[in-house]
Amino acid sequence: MKDSLFIKACKGEQTERTPIWIMRQAGRYLSEYRAIREKYDFLTSCKTPELASEITIQPIDIVKTDAAILFSDILVIPEAMGMHLELIESKGPVFDTPIRSLEQIKNLQTDGMIERLDYVMQAIKMTKEKLNGRVPLIGFSGAPWTLATYMVEGKGSKNYDVIKSFMYNEPAVAHQLLQILADSIVEYLNAKIEAGCDAVQIFDTWAGILSPTDFEEFSLKYIRYICDNLKTNGAPVIVFAKGASSYKGLAELNCDVLGVDWSKNLGDVRNEINSKKGLQGNLDPTVLFAPKEKIKTEVERVLASYGNGSGHVFNLGHGVLPKTPVENVQYLVDCVKELSGKFHEE
Amino acid sequence: MKDSLFIKACKGEQTERTPIWIMRQAGRYLSEYRAIREKYDFLTSCKTPELASEITIQPIDIVKTDAAILFSDILVIPEAMGMHLELIESKGPVFDTPIRSLEQIKNLQTDGMIERLDYVMQAIKMTKEKLNGRVPLIGFSGAPWTLATYMVEGKGSKNYDVIKSFMYNEPAVAHQLLQILADSIVEYLNAKIEAGCDAVQIFDTWAGILSPTDFEEFSLKYIRYICDNLKTNGAPVIVFAKGASSYKGLAELNCDVLGVDWSKNLGDVRNEINSKKGLQGNLDPTVLFAPKEKIKTEVERVLASYGNGSGHVFNLGHGVLPKTPVENVQYLVDCVKELSGKFHEE
Repeated sequence: MKDSLFIKACKGEQTERTPIWIMRQAGRYLSEYRAIREKYDFLTSCKTPELASEITIQPIDIVKTDAAILFSDILVIPEAMGMHLELIESKGPVFDTPIRSLEQIKNLQTDGMIERLDYVMQAIKMTKEKLNGRVPLIGFSGAPWTLATYMVEGKGSKNYDVIKSFMYNEPAVAHQLLQILADSIVEYLNAKIEAGCDAVQIFDTWAGILSPTDFEEFSLKYIRYICDNLKTNGAPVIVFAKGASSYKGLAELNCDVLGVDWSKNLGDVRNEINSKKGLQGNLDPTVLFAPKEKIKTEVERVLASYGNGSGHVFNLGHGVLPKTPVENVQYLVDCVKELSGKFHEE
Repeated sequence: MKDSLFIKACKGEQTERTPIWIMRQAGRYLSEYRAIREKYDFLTSCKTPELASEITIQPIDIVKTDAAILFSDILVIPEAMGMHLELIESKGPVFDTPIRSLEQIKNLQTDGMIERLDYVMQAIKMTKEKLNGRVPLIGFSGAPWTLATYMVEGKGSKNYDVIKSFMYNEPAVAHQLLQILADSIVEYLNAKIEAGCDAVQIFDTWAGILSPTDFEEFSLKYIRYICDNLKTNGAPVIVFAKGASSYKGLAELNCDVLGVDWSKNLGDVRNEINSKKGLQGNLDPTVLFAPKEKIKTEVERVLASYGNGSGHVFNLGHGVLPKTPVENVQYLVDCVKELSGKFHEE
């Protein structure tokens, strides 16, 4: 897939237009997805390669994005370590026995984790067959900080005071958990690349709740470790630290592309990092509830904010929302395909 | 109060140390506050000048901050416009009939609003008497965008898709609501200053959910209008746009101080705005769950990130959390008083 639009853009190579894929493009806004989920719960859908691969390719057929992303969840790692996970989309994920002690961390079952995640590798192989070379396949993982946040909080949080109290009061224990996660993520993403993923993305959904110094100490350090230890075999690596207030540290990572949420101006970030990395983003997902003219205007604004030249992967600034009208997602993809060419003329 | 530490720091004048106050310093972490709230509900406490003034001065006596902030809520404005408000601290505010149409906006009772808010002015006068010149009194309002978000969503929201769909699909109607709010806020803050407030703060709690262009169009424009129309009579104006990704536009406001949340480095913001305004912030509120050594380290870090010279008002990057130990809040105040002097030597 080295000649695909998406991989070339990730590598900063010249393309004739800007590629687009959409975070959570395989998801609830699609009636075809809801039809599967009426029969199977979320975890079963993740764990059954036939279902996961079918869900993964739905948006390729229906909204025609330039890359597929394997249908899965970032919390399959702690689940494979033995934590009991309930995934109810309407109320968010819940671990009924959250991590609160060193003993619990020592009891995490890292041995054999990758074998217990073999269903993911099987889903990748099946998806690659179904895609049959149409578009590249992205695999993903949560970042250590984001996984630790879920594992320690146990459920959705307003102020993240449990994980932060834990990290402030027992920093050595917190670092032990983060290092275990970093090692597991390296193993997991390497296996995904080995199984056929053409690119990988690391999601640090909760980067933005940390101060700049805490972000460096408790998050960026471990993302750096992962990037330095991946056997990418040429697969681009995308790091999305949602809510990060500075991109300077991220720009030094051993990765290809940085995700940007919609609160930033892409051109400002591009200047801040001196075009050292590609950028992915960053349309506000709620713009897809707007009339078509507004969607078009906002697509043009995002394209223009990045400006001319290679290295931009169009995406939303966060996942597509469940109630988004499908025709607006299709229109978004059409707009990017139609309007982005002029930013790539030599 | 022109010679108080807080007012001088807001005005960028030389002081011997950095002043500190704490957002939500009059609140649930204080047992004295909880004792009052066991007898009276939240709105009754706001609407009864004896109670509001007593709550307001509690932290002055107990944690010894350098400014008081009138105990109230940003939603008293829509409540005084006739919207039925339920304030249950554990689940957040709820309007049972949220704004969804132009007709509802036209029915907002702006006439006589300020008279219906006279309890606020009475509370200010009573608080000023109780303070007896010890520290200045801050009055506050929500920003138009933040008030509109609550009024249209009606309750807490994860993605703010209702207010954003409204603003994208009916921008003219949204602007009408925002202008009504801006005019009401001018009237309200002017009355507060008239009643005795020594400074005012405008809270744009939901600034961070907007893209930079939407922030300019739907929020900053109206904050600018308010700043330009206040009769401050010398009272400093503080604008806190939580989650703002850029401070360039904010730096051009007709105000004295900009609030900064903890995701930013104060020194970076100070450079970005070329020291045009004072800065207020920005310790992560969860640091107050840490051991004392960590609190001290983080206070030093925040002071050092701002650097030498005047114009810094110490605060948290958001409100103090309900379960925060009081002794840690007291220790924070002591640390700032003790450690900040060296940043003010000539």
